[in-house]
Amino acid sequence: MKVGVDELESLAIGAAILGAGGGGDPYVGMLMAMRAIEEHGEVELLDPNKIPDDMFIIPTAMMGAPTIMNERIPSGEETVRSMRKLEKHLGRKADATMPIESGGINSTMPFNVAARTGLPVVDADGMGRAFPELQMETFHIYGISGAPAVVSDERGNSCIIESVDNYQLEWLARGITIRMGGASHLAEYVMTGEQVKRTGIHYSVSLAIKIGDAIRHAAKTGKTPLERVMEVTEATNYGKAIPLFRGKIIDIERQTTAGFAVGRVEIEGLDEYQGSRLTITFQNENLVAKVDGRVIASVPDIISILDMERALPITTENLRYGFRVMVIGIPTPEIMRTPEALKVWGPRYFGYDFDFTPLELLHREYYRRARLPPEKEKKYREQLG
Amino acid sequence: MKVGVDELESLAIGAAILGAGGGGDPYVGMLMAMRAIEEHGEVELLDPNKIPDDMFIIPTAMMGAPTIMNERIPSGEETVRSMRKLEKHLGRKADATMPIESGGINSTMPFNVAARTGLPVVDADGMGRAFPELQMETFHIYGISGAPAVVSDERGNSCIIESVDNYQLEWLARGITIRMGGASHLAEYVMTGEQVKRTGIHYSVSLAIKIGDAIRHAAKTGKTPLERVMEVTEATNYGKAIPLFRGKIIDIERQTTAGFAVGRVEIEGLDEYQGSRLTITFQNENLVAKVDGRVIASVPDIISILDMERALPITTENLRYGFRVMVIGIPTPEIMRTPEALKVWGPRYFGYDFDFTPLELLHREYYRRARLPPEKEKKYREQLG
Repeated sequence: MKVGVDELESLAIGAAILGAGGGGDPYVGMLMAMRAIEEHGEVELLDPNKIPDDMFIIPTAMMGAPTIMNERIPSGEETVRSMRKLEKHLGRKADATMPIESGGINSTMPFNVAARTGLPVVDADGMGRAFPELQMETFHIYGISGAPAVVSDERGNSCIIESVDNYQLEWLARGITIRMGGASHLAEYVMTGEQVKRTGIHYSVSLAIKIGDAIRHAAKTGKTPLERVMEVTEATNYGKAIPLFRGKIIDIERQTTAGFAVGRVEIEGLDEYQGSRLTITFQNENLVAKVDGRVIASVPDIISILDMERALPITTENLRYGFRVMVIGIPTPEIMRTPEALKVWGPRYFGYDFDFTPLELLHREYYRRARLPPEKEKKYREQLG
Repeated sequence: MKVGVDELESLAIGAAILGAGGGGDPYVGMLMAMRAIEEHGEVELLDPNKIPDDMFIIPTAMMGAPTIMNERIPSGEETVRSMRKLEKHLGRKADATMPIESGGINSTMPFNVAARTGLPVVDADGMGRAFPELQMETFHIYGISGAPAVVSDERGNSCIIESVDNYQLEWLARGITIRMGGASHLAEYVMTGEQVKRTGIHYSVSLAIKIGDAIRHAAKTGKTPLERVMEVTEATNYGKAIPLFRGKIIDIERQTTAGFAVGRVEIEGLDEYQGSRLTITFQNENLVAKVDGRVIASVPDIISILDMERALPITTENLRYGFRVMVIGIPTPEIMRTPEALKVWGPRYFGYDFDFTPLELLHREYYRRARLPPEKEKKYREQLG
């Protein structure tokens, strides 16, 4: 599949929805990748199950608080520089790049790198959504080292990090990113094709493009954007999107702490949700949604806030008092919900005192009616009894 | 000249005096280098004016607040690891190592590295004393890049830093050092023999050994340790040491801020200084000494606090209420007092509102009587009119 300017526009929107409020403003990421594609041509998107086992892949990304990433629009060359320095350090040229997360900026950033270098992008990532820390990767969970990694800034500074584990990588790269002004450009989690097949979250890029397409072109189908999102997420390695809430933002609290945007948004119910209140807490990304104190969705499942008219995603840094929004949930792929994975990004890692329950179990009625893939249908029917 | 265990003991003491209160506890540095020399044998100290122009030198050091460096005694392999990683990054093996500063830990650290690797040490450094920041180097002042540099910790983490200038190097390495727990191991300011000849402060290692010897063995000569320090500093590229004050520490204020130990010590005069009060302000190192508000010595000239009995140096982190001390000054070499140099480490850089005046001019009477090297004699006689 070729990714051009039109696919990028859809990707930015769809990835921001998978980004669960994080991953940066889709508009910023889109502009940067579009400019690169207009200059250098379309980019090949590779099926992760069809790449050679010995393919050499260097994922690329930005790091930092989205509030700062959005303000400091880079030239586009910084991330290429990180990749080149890592290639030089390892003595091997990349055959492809890949996202490490799904989000407005980090889903599109590899296309900027790919367009500028002539490399393809692998249709996979390591978060399946956006997450705030570098060890929050299926790559990490299933044994890949994030280091050596290169962090660069737009002034021309770079650091090659060799860490003893991925937690130390996160700690050091975060410290460097803060010193670089709060945003940086990253090449890390160098991998072979075989490792992507085994540890990656597959088809997250093309799914994001499908979700973005669905929203942009819903009108042509006579359906609402939300209905179309529900349709295109069904029968994927993710699960069918579920409408969770509709309402008006009545309070928002947000601060940048240790390089993260941390906070909470309160939404007062409208329509059938009138009289209820939804609270979403976030650390760069939306982590937990509660209605009147009851958990209705939690990390790692995706909680996304969309504007009520056009179903466009609103990232945490763009939330404002008075916005009328709808909140949706998207079940994450099974590779993200294993016990090993939940240790890294389950609610307890973020300081909550409860375990993860899949959206499908929190909303049995909806998912009983939803058309699930046969193997999931069976699994959840067993769990539901 | 060979440096063995006995020379190291003198070096640690003498370097801590040149260290101006900074550069870490001489005892910690000495123990580490002694262990390495006992295991691996003596180290060759090279005359900087007799090394080949194309010699490839990788200086090594520790970085961090001395209060933390003293608490976290390393295995000795960390600094070797930094050097090895820098060699690998540059694709060239070091022919020698060298100190980047004169101080209790950083004068002895290169001997630890040298003993473990079989390399010689060049008898020079880039600070001529201790200073708190990485761009405070004659190497920097006269055009050498500190980067690429490697920072490592004792856990096994390393960062290779490539910065656009030496200020950015300091900023990034400091941030990484803080994340590494406040102390780290450094290889930086890679240089050729020609560059050391042109930009280094020569013979600072052997001078420190002479000063340490003088203090340790003063009794044999029938002179006081202080008299001996005055003798051995005379007729060197430094200037003759001057006794500045004697008294009792009556107040001390010290905090660790942004990776630095910052503070102030108050000393109440004894003997002929009775009725006066000396205030020394420091940032890791002693920067300015004032008697009753009048500057009597300032950075870059060396201000050292010695215990009154044995003239052993007391570093800023070891100052305690009630200690009876003497304070001495040592004029620094001319390469450290040029207008370019004073821009980097003159009093104004540290936030003081006055310019540097050499000890020789602040204490005309003493230096009129002192036997100065002929060319200095002439220069200062002219300045004194």
